Amino acid sequence: MSFQNPVFIPGPTNIPENLRKACDMPTIDHRSPLFGQILHPAREGVRKVLKSDSAEVFIFPSTGTGGWETALTNCLSAGDKVLSARNGMFSHRWIDMCQRHGLDVQIVETPWGEGLPADRFEEILTADTNHEIKAVLATHNETATGVKSDIAAVRKALDAAGHPALMFVDGVSSIGSMDFRFDEWGVDVAVAGSQKGFMLMAGLAIVGFSEKAMAATQTATLPRTFFDVHDMKKGYANSAYPYTPAVGMLNGLNQACTMLLDEGLENVFARHHRIAEGVRAAVGAWGLELCAASPDLYSDTVSAIRTPEGFNATDIVSHAASKYGVAFGVGLGEVAGKVFRIGHLGSLTDVMTLSGLATAEMCMADLGLDITLGSGVAAAQEYYRGHAVAARKSAA
Amino acid sequence: MSFQNPVFIPGPTNIPENLRKACDMPTIDHRSPLFGQILHPAREGVRKVLKSDSAEVFIFPSTGTGGWETALTNCLSAGDKVLSARNGMFSHRWIDMCQRHGLDVQIVETPWGEGLPADRFEEILTADTNHEIKAVLATHNETATGVKSDIAAVRKALDAAGHPALMFVDGVSSIGSMDFRFDEWGVDVAVAGSQKGFMLMAGLAIVGFSEKAMAATQTATLPRTFFDVHDMKKGYANSAYPYTPAVGMLNGLNQACTMLLDEGLENVFARHHRIAEGVRAAVGAWGLELCAASPDLYSDTVSAIRTPEGFNATDIVSHAASKYGVAFGVGLGEVAGKVFRIGHLGSLTDVMTLSGLATAEMCMADLGLDITLGSGVAAAQEYYRGHAVAARKSAA
Amino acid sequence: MSFQNPVFIPGPTNIPENLRKACDMPTIDHRSPLFGQILHPAREGVRKVLKSDSAEVFIFPSTGTGGWETALTNCLSAGDKVLSARNGMFSHRWIDMCQRHGLDVQIVETPWGEGLPADRFEEILTADTNHEIKAVLATHNETATGVKSDIAAVRKALDAAGHPALMFVDGVSSIGSMDFRFDEWGVDVAVAGSQKGFMLMAGLAIVGFSEKAMAATQTATLPRTFFDVHDMKKGYANSAYPYTPAVGMLNGLNQACTMLLDEGLENVFARHHRIAEGVRAAVGAWGLELCAASPDLYSDTVSAIRTPEGFNATDIVSHAASKYGVAFGVGLGEVAGKVFRIGHLGSLTDVMTLSGLATAEMCMADLGLDITLGSGVAAAQEYYRGHAVAARKSAA
Amino acid sequence: MSFQNPVFIPGPTNIPENLRKACDMPTIDHRSPLFGQILHPAREGVRKVLKSDSAEVFIFPSTGTGGWETALTNCLSAGDKVLSARNGMFSHRWIDMCQRHGLDVQIVETPWGEGLPADRFEEILTADTNHEIKAVLATHNETATGVKSDIAAVRKALDAAGHPALMFVDGVSSIGSMDFRFDEWGVDVAVAGSQKGFMLMAGLAIVGFSEKAMAATQTATLPRTFFDVHDMKKGYANSAYPYTPAVGMLNGLNQACTMLLDEGLENVFARHHRIAEGVRAAVGAWGLELCAASPDLYSDTVSAIRTPEGFNATDIVSHAASKYGVAFGVGLGEVAGKVFRIGHLGSLTDVMTLSGLATAEMCMADLGLDITLGSGVAAAQEYYRGHAVAARKSAA
Repeated sequence: MSFQNPVFIPGPTNIPENLRKACDMPTIDHRSPLFGQILHPAREGVRKVLKSDSAEVFIFPSTGTGGWETALTNCLSAGDKVLSARNGMFSHRWIDMCQRHGLDVQIVETPWGEGLPADRFEEILTADTNHEIKAVLATHNETATGVKSDIAAVRKALDAAGHPALMFVDGVSSIGSMDFRFDEWGVDVAVAGSQKGFMLMAGLAIVGFSEKAMAATQTATLPRTFFDVHDMKKGYANSAYPYTPAVGMLNGLNQACTMLLDEGLENVFARHHRIAEGVRAAVGAWGLELCAASPDLYSDTVSAIRTPEGFNATDIVSHAASKYGVAFGVGLGEVAGKVFRIGHLGSLTDVMTLSGLATAEMCMADLGLDITLGSGVAAAQEYYRGHAVAARKSAA
Repeated sequence: MSFQNPVFIPGPTNIPENLRKACDMPTIDHRSPLFGQILHPAREGVRKVLKSDSAEVFIFPSTGTGGWETALTNCLSAGDKVLSARNGMFSHRWIDMCQRHGLDVQIVETPWGEGLPADRFEEILTADTNHEIKAVLATHNETATGVKSDIAAVRKALDAAGHPALMFVDGVSSIGSMDFRFDEWGVDVAVAGSQKGFMLMAGLAIVGFSEKAMAATQTATLPRTFFDVHDMKKGYANSAYPYTPAVGMLNGLNQACTMLLDEGLENVFARHHRIAEGVRAAVGAWGLELCAASPDLYSDTVSAIRTPEGFNATDIVSHAASKYGVAFGVGLGEVAGKVFRIGHLGSLTDVMTLSGLATAEMCMADLGLDITLGSGVAAAQEYYRGHAVAARKSAA
Repeated sequence: MSFQNPVFIPGPTNIPENLRKACDMPTIDHRSPLFGQILHPAREGVRKVLKSDSAEVFIFPSTGTGGWETALTNCLSAGDKVLSARNGMFSHRWIDMCQRHGLDVQIVETPWGEGLPADRFEEILTADTNHEIKAVLATHNETATGVKSDIAAVRKALDAAGHPALMFVDGVSSIGSMDFRFDEWGVDVAVAGSQKGFMLMAGLAIVGFSEKAMAATQTATLPRTFFDVHDMKKGYANSAYPYTPAVGMLNGLNQACTMLLDEGLENVFARHHRIAEGVRAAVGAWGLELCAASPDLYSDTVSAIRTPEGFNATDIVSHAASKYGVAFGVGLGEVAGKVFRIGHLGSLTDVMTLSGLATAEMCMADLGLDITLGSGVAAAQEYYRGHAVAARKSAA
Repeated sequence: MSFQNPVFIPGPTNIPENLRKACDMPTIDHRSPLFGQILHPAREGVRKVLKSDSAEVFIFPSTGTGGWETALTNCLSAGDKVLSARNGMFSHRWIDMCQRHGLDVQIVETPWGEGLPADRFEEILTADTNHEIKAVLATHNETATGVKSDIAAVRKALDAAGHPALMFVDGVSSIGSMDFRFDEWGVDVAVAGSQKGFMLMAGLAIVGFSEKAMAATQTATLPRTFFDVHDMKKGYANSAYPYTPAVGMLNGLNQACTMLLDEGLENVFARHHRIAEGVRAAVGAWGLELCAASPDLYSDTVSAIRTPEGFNATDIVSHAASKYGVAFGVGLGEVAGKVFRIGHLGSLTDVMTLSGLATAEMCMADLGLDITLGSGVAAAQEYYRGHAVAARKSAA
């Protein structure tokens, strides 16, 4: 196995040297006070990354999918009604999970490439005068389409409708990379994973619960044990876990938060935006278009790039892997074969990004697309040259 | 944080150098063929460690507790009756999980320190002529009491009763360290974790399903998504996961299995037995007794040692940590304060074990127990000197 | 410190993941048989990389400079005459070392950018009828100018002159990356370091001695202890060292040789040539020239690139470091300020190389050179696209 | 290779986790300013460990033996007279080096097990009215015999004789573990290595030069290049090296010094003394004697233990390695076969030490010595129990 080239998948990201070392920890006794010295700062760090003063942060040895299940099973009961749009693979999967857990999902089908339909949500919520809808599920960043939705607008829809439903936000591919405001947006449950903005390997589900969400757990009857936030909370009070924690990864998470906060969250977001703008400049130079329908929807963590009709975009990904040893993301679900994805989140530099763009160019040329070699690279270089100052602030 | 001394907790164990390095892996694309080269051998390795020809092995980014939930939610439905003995903290917790998931648990209260009551199981199963009991839950090694139960006897009880219930076995602290025979014992679901016999950090739930258990999943209606074995199985068929896998840990698991199988499972078991016998020789020399009621119940992975009446055994654990930087295990539940535990599983040598015993002696002496310094060490030395040949076969 | 971008200095190179892990070794007893299991295969591996059947390989905890000193002090005596050309910084430094050790160096001043003057050597050696010249010093690859010399031609010069002088070859930046034939070329002492073709960190001087060189050590009187090859040889016979060895680095060296030999030396050389050709294609597209005077002199491990008159080439290096976090090499000695260097040896891919070229373009444009962004990248892409098959054989 | 047990050789020591990580560094450009951020603090840290305000510290990619050569070749000229006692293998080797470099060594033969004969030195120096003796060589801690000499007394001898000779001190196995006072003792060159008190792997020679020693370099004519302190000093002024530095090891050295200074040098020394006292208590309980002739000579970093007449002490070392996987040190030179050595320096705890003592007991019993198992362990336990408070201050 060669590990020379960076990866350009939309998570797991390239892991910074110091985070690898932080995770690679000898065994300690997780029932000793040492463990609290890792656990509590990690939770506090996550809370700050969420921009929250009061969220209860829970960290499970699991993944973002486990985070979704945590949100649902702790706050809802079988038969409860929830509202969700389906505008990509990850919203689709969350809806599927709801249905498997016996929830009644009102689905707003939304074109893949569009953001969450806050207006439509407002209509539905306003019409739900009995407040049968218990939760609104919102995917902040659709990793499948490279679409960032406006969570503030979803909150506004809830408020405009005067609706008390909980708002669950999937921030797996946004938190730690793009602006996320737990308190300001009135998020009730935020779901993240270790392997995106936190720049670690997969293995942790990271969730934040609002006071309102914590209250909802008192009456929610969906069965839960592994993902039970009360067991977790009780454990935390004793600097412990209800079962064996993934100590090294928590240590890594603690250090990841320190890195993000030392750099400054706004700098982190600006850095992601800058890197993404370079990628988008390249896409434009190639004469291609993003899956995301409009610039306000462009994700700063992943770009899904449409290839011409009749061309199988997945070939780019296979070809890049087999010929150049570089990993891009395939299209998923409705856009399978229609897009390929460049992940540009976490620990990434201009220089690394340019190598990804150069590789994409070679692949597209190899596969017969009408691409001028160096064209996308040049567009990105031009952008990065003019916007490089901010890069020096990056500790990542 | 100092990492100089070995730990003597009953898991996570000391992690061998090569396993730490195997887990500490740069990011690869988990959707690329490379991933299959890690996943499939890891699953195959686990199957062999389980001594099974046909078990379906599933590996979740989770812990043993998640493995329990996998067993229950995939094979059972709300209201189903299950049979379990409560003879320690871990059987207690599994029973609690059943109840939270709406299962009807018939509990056989059993003294802590005793093994599973196979005779009583046989009576109950024989009496259950309607076959209302859908599953028998058996904890192979009670980590809280250091008691190893006879799973073959539980199987015999089921067979004698002609009862079709599934047999779920918690092998978290036995598999990979003590003899476990999935096929021979007719185990339907075996549950393990990465942090015990597999010598890794916590972070993986490892489960094996029999054909009969897989069949049961077709009708089981407990809600599940994260722990759904069908999603997992579908993923595996494409060398993939239903969500982001913990690639580095899977790589470590693969290598851990290779280590165990290269050493030879019987050698691994003999090595654990030998190390444990030395510890038990020391306990005898100290004039103390094990929590386990009789030699046939003695666990080869953990010893729970009773301290004299009126003495708080937990003080030994706190004192060892604060004065000597050594981690032992406290007593849990009914035996809290009455026992302290020495974990002796995974990657451990005679030499490391002697340092644990020497530390325990210093602690007990410091705390006023009537212990002759060096007495337990001498007893263990005597044993190890006479039984050291087998040690040379150990690669661990 | 950020470690995200590859380095493009002419050594130390980027260190492959597995070599870092091989070097990062816990302490073993270097007087135990275990050490021999590392030492002997490492020496044998180096011998094969040198393409020798019989060279005595010595490995010192030192660097290439120490290797030079090993060659001189073990084979020569104060006042001895040696022949050397000065065509770059490293030949210059070796000459300086000779003079400090009281050797009488006949220097053939040669333009920087030219190779070793084998014809001139032949004249001088032929004229030296008394065989006063005891050794010819030849720098195989001048790292300062990116010039590879023809060592076979130097051997031919010696043979044509019927001259018995020893031939010492500095292969620090060639061995393990470009074809080197110890036996075929009649090399007497070959000098290498760990941090170039062997892809490790600096810390080892690696030398090969011919039988003739070993014989010369019997009469050589320059003082030596640390670098004494006889002490070393005596130690090796007992799987030991005359002092404490750098065990982890030897372990890494052993594995590095395994990597090179598994890939196949000819494949390794072809890979370096291919990577280098892409860099040279870029240089051409930029309208710049190499310091090396003609294509037969082009080094496959480092390119020294001339910048236009009046431009300080060193600015590119400082700018790349400070603005883009990328390391190139500065010009040294006579070509300081006139060239900047791109190292392209060791563990490097097309994709990594393209990021270096893209960075160089941005720097040159930033500093006002008339460079079309993307032009060099496109030229290299074109080359790599057409020559990528060989890349798949690379394990590096 | 198994790395489970600690080593008990007198260096290299067990490497602390954080130092291994500090050394395991990706490649940086050693000509960039980053390098200075590692080099200068490392040198400054060493200076403080030497207890010097003004020593020039030089660090070579080499070992302690290279440090000796640095002292000799930079300060002396062929034919110079030096004074040295031979009381162990390491003083013997240094004398041998002097002779190979053409120095005229006046050797004071001293029984192995005795310290440096300061009185005899005083006589000789007083008699040397022409001041022909240019340097006195003093081995602070004879690793072969476990004898610590009184360097202050050697200084007093020089002063009493009014003799201007330089004083070179081999502190390889003392510096960083036992009190060493460069300034107070008037040391002119101090020699250390990375693999003892600094707790790193072998690979660095660490030397400190006084102003007087620096002055001596101006006239010294022994040939030198690799070990030339002037080249080194010139490099340091530009945050550079005269050749490629071992960056990772320098990074480790920097952090090692930070660890030592954070713990406090006096605490470090007290910790070593305490560990050593436990070992000596065990030796006494075994009824054995140290090679060191009297308590004032006892080394706190290594104990050489005499075994009964007719017994081959080396068998203990071989047996410990092959049967128990534990490394002790063999006797060297005159005491080969007569002593075995327990190294107790660097990163070591009571608990680790007890495991070494327990192993030594098993080995001696296995080999037929009349040793009561547990007896030495008990004596050490008794000592450590009563002296454990200081241990809590240790960060090592």
